Amino acid sequence: MSDGDLIIASDDAPPDLDAIRRAAVRIRGRVHETPVISSRSLDEEFGGNILFKCENLQRVGAFKARGAANAVFALSDDDAARGVATHSSGNHGAALALAAASRGIPCWVVVPTNAPRIKADAVVRYGATVVPCEPGLRSREEGLTRVLESTGATRVHPYDDYRVIAGQGTTAVEFLSQSPALDVLMTPVGGGGLIAGCAIAAKGIKPEIRVIGCEPANADDAKRSFESGNRVVVDAPDTVADGLRASLGVRNFAIILDYVDDIVTVSESEIIAAMRLVWERLKMVIEPSCAVPVAALMNGSLNPVGRTVGVVLTGGNVDLDNLPWQGAG
Amino acid sequence: MSDGDLIIASDDAPPDLDAIRRAAVRIRGRVHETPVISSRSLDEEFGGNILFKCENLQRVGAFKARGAANAVFALSDDDAARGVATHSSGNHGAALALAAASRGIPCWVVVPTNAPRIKADAVVRYGATVVPCEPGLRSREEGLTRVLESTGATRVHPYDDYRVIAGQGTTAVEFLSQSPALDVLMTPVGGGGLIAGCAIAAKGIKPEIRVIGCEPANADDAKRSFESGNRVVVDAPDTVADGLRASLGVRNFAIILDYVDDIVTVSESEIIAAMRLVWERLKMVIEPSCAVPVAALMNGSLNPVGRTVGVVLTGGNVDLDNLPWQGAG
Repeated sequence: MSDGDLIIASDDAPPDLDAIRRAAVRIRGRVHETPVISSRSLDEEFGGNILFKCENLQRVGAFKARGAANAVFALSDDDAARGVATHSSGNHGAALALAAASRGIPCWVVVPTNAPRIKADAVVRYGATVVPCEPGLRSREEGLTRVLESTGATRVHPYDDYRVIAGQGTTAVEFLSQSPALDVLMTPVGGGGLIAGCAIAAKGIKPEIRVIGCEPANADDAKRSFESGNRVVVDAPDTVADGLRASLGVRNFAIILDYVDDIVTVSESEIIAAMRLVWERLKMVIEPSCAVPVAALMNGSLNPVGRTVGVVLTGGNVDLDNLPWQGAG
Repeated sequence: MSDGDLIIASDDAPPDLDAIRRAAVRIRGRVHETPVISSRSLDEEFGGNILFKCENLQRVGAFKARGAANAVFALSDDDAARGVATHSSGNHGAALALAAASRGIPCWVVVPTNAPRIKADAVVRYGATVVPCEPGLRSREEGLTRVLESTGATRVHPYDDYRVIAGQGTTAVEFLSQSPALDVLMTPVGGGGLIAGCAIAAKGIKPEIRVIGCEPANADDAKRSFESGNRVVVDAPDTVADGLRASLGVRNFAIILDYVDDIVTVSESEIIAAMRLVWERLKMVIEPSCAVPVAALMNGSLNPVGRTVGVVLTGGNVDLDNLPWQGAG
């Protein structure tokens, strides 16, 4: 079980580029290689070369398929047999359910009652058990603890887990192999799984690249943590970006301090305008969380002029009956 | 001017595969090579391998960029200097405007007043002049005649033009080079530019492929023409698929009779359900017209079981404030 040994070792410490490359090999064929797209009209408006990595086209409609697949397929057979469990406002839950179904093991997902219904539905569709809880990190943790104690399942945290971080980092490995010219890499920041993995991978491949985290001003725990050097926790922040309501994980924060260049914030109205711009111009269905880096380009937080900027479009699971610009209009 | 000579010659007769390949060379770099995507969950539901050619990600958000670019860049310098003109409910207008702007020549677009505003806006954005007219083919033709007489511009018909047909056919050349395994190719049918060009190209490359045209039952002129052998014209049909309101062109009908295997129809509610399915599962913003072949897969008009079916997603220009399922709900 050399593969398992490698993972157990790498789970004790943050993944390096090699560990992320091994994760990419492990999940190959279990997740999609997603396309990179661009728009000449957007490039003209922004004055830079903006490349979009379409993880909204990933399996389960979000990059979360990567981390979940890496975590599930790295388990020993004995651990796997007892199943996996997590809490998630949605995309990680669906991703873990899919990965567990692929390996033929049970899966439980603790889902807060304010998560979009489409996300809980996806968990069920992949054959996992949904365990409802109240919104907020504390309720999610309590619900999950009960599940773990009663089942013996392995916890796969949505972001504060080195195997998950390594899996999410495969996004940057793939992006830079498709688009080696990137000067800047922008991702949303919620719990920090994506940006932590991507920052390690991107700086490993191309040390001069700038990695920028983007988050809602209404959920700015990452920015405040990054600037103060102390991890700030925000419970149940009020933002349309439902995928970014979680606070930064412990492991994620440490990696972000080491590898990320800056964290910028955007307003709720900027998120909605950016989401709409992507729908209209890129013809991509993206969820609000996914629009946050685009909002940062639109509000001038990052000046793309003359640069090649990579944006990870993180997910496309949105309730088509409740689009945010319709409530606002 | 050997390039111009080739075109004048090929404009006298339907393009063959070679002419379509030359069109592909002519427009290279002026249009995008669009990605092909698929969804495992949709494949499981449909029981076949469904591949989607994302022309909604094409320049101007529709395959029409191909035909317009081929027509404009095939003009002699003298003809080009006097500009180009067309009538269009939208995507062809934007496409011609873009192609004309690329060549630095004037462009006039006659747009019916019931066209989605996003489409007229795009014409203006690319620097062309919009000439409004009443809905219906007769009004469009009258408006265009006045423009042609006053400007000396060259008419570039949205579909009933061999250069446009050749340009649209490059979609199939590209699709089959990306996905050689296609057993079936499905496209919407409006005026017939896309299916005519694609049928010639697809049958030329792979004679055993089946080419199926799909249209709204409310605008079933192509089906009735195909079955009767006589071209039927429907003026201003009432369908949510605004891009398919035009009747089959003369040149298009002749090619369809020779090359297309079948024409199938779908209801308005099937179009809307298919559009929503693509948004939810493929994360692609598509316009109603574009959903018509997907609706034909959903309603059983074509059985995909065990086959590799290619669907051209033709365009993504839709008014996000007026989504069809919201009116219906």
